Amino acid sequence: MSVADIANGLVSLCKQGKFLDAVNQYYGESIVSVEAFGNEKMPAEMSGIDAIRGKNQWWAENHEVHGLEVAGPYVGDAGFAVKFNLDVTPKMTGQRMTMVEVGWYTVADGKISREEFYYNAPGQ
Amino acid sequence: MSVADIANGLVSLCKQGKFLDAVNQYYGESIVSVEAFGNEKMPAEMSGIDAIRGKNQWWAENHEVHGLEVAGPYVGDAGFAVKFNLDVTPKMTGQRMTMVEVGWYTVADGKISREEFYYNAPGQ
Repeated sequence: MSVADIANGLVSLCKQGKFLDAVNQYYGESIVSVEAFGNEKMPAEMSGIDAIRGKNQWWAENHEVHGLEVAGPYVGDAGFAVKFNLDVTPKMTGQRMTMVEVGWYTVADGKISREEFYYNAPGQ
Repeated sequence: MSVADIANGLVSLCKQGKFLDAVNQYYGESIVSVEAFGNEKMPAEMSGIDAIRGKNQWWAENHEVHGLEVAGPYVGDAGFAVKFNLDVTPKMTGQRMTMVEVGWYTVADGKISREEFYYNAPGQ
């Protein structure tokens, strides 16, 4: 599967909110996931497909999604980038917010081997 | 000029640290530039090529660059994305730091019409 195939497949599933399906279909076993911020319970960098499935499940259970726009993918030989515009209410705060993030994905051996998330300030 | 031509040209100039040349060569007159963070003197969103030239000049004069890596571009129909790893000392603080950012560029009529910068936490 080409980088473009993986990129388009991931974007298609994300547009439907099927993040966990995207993980199951396109992520490698040794996936490394890097968030912009971390804390003691949820470190910024996690690795292994089970940990990433757990993070996705935690996110889905703890956020109410009002709106989601997905732009891209922009594709290269080594990977691809996708932009997410999210309108969500984290259950922890109850405060509805918009956030924009770019996912920077690295592909190796036909699977996503690394994802990195980059943020802009909320509301922009 | 295609989106890929612009993307590769910008990356080539950025790798040489020639950010202002990239602005002069590839940016449209009405360019909109969106940083992740702003303040009173330097708002997050600025527009117009003169303002963006001024921002680039300010940045060059106020940062000592020890190292710069540029990854990408990842390219699509509407634009492209580039990742920058920077090792810099802001003159204001004197504290050397690493930062990683992704630039998300929109192309219209053969020129870059919008740039948005997304950040990961320093040191990652």
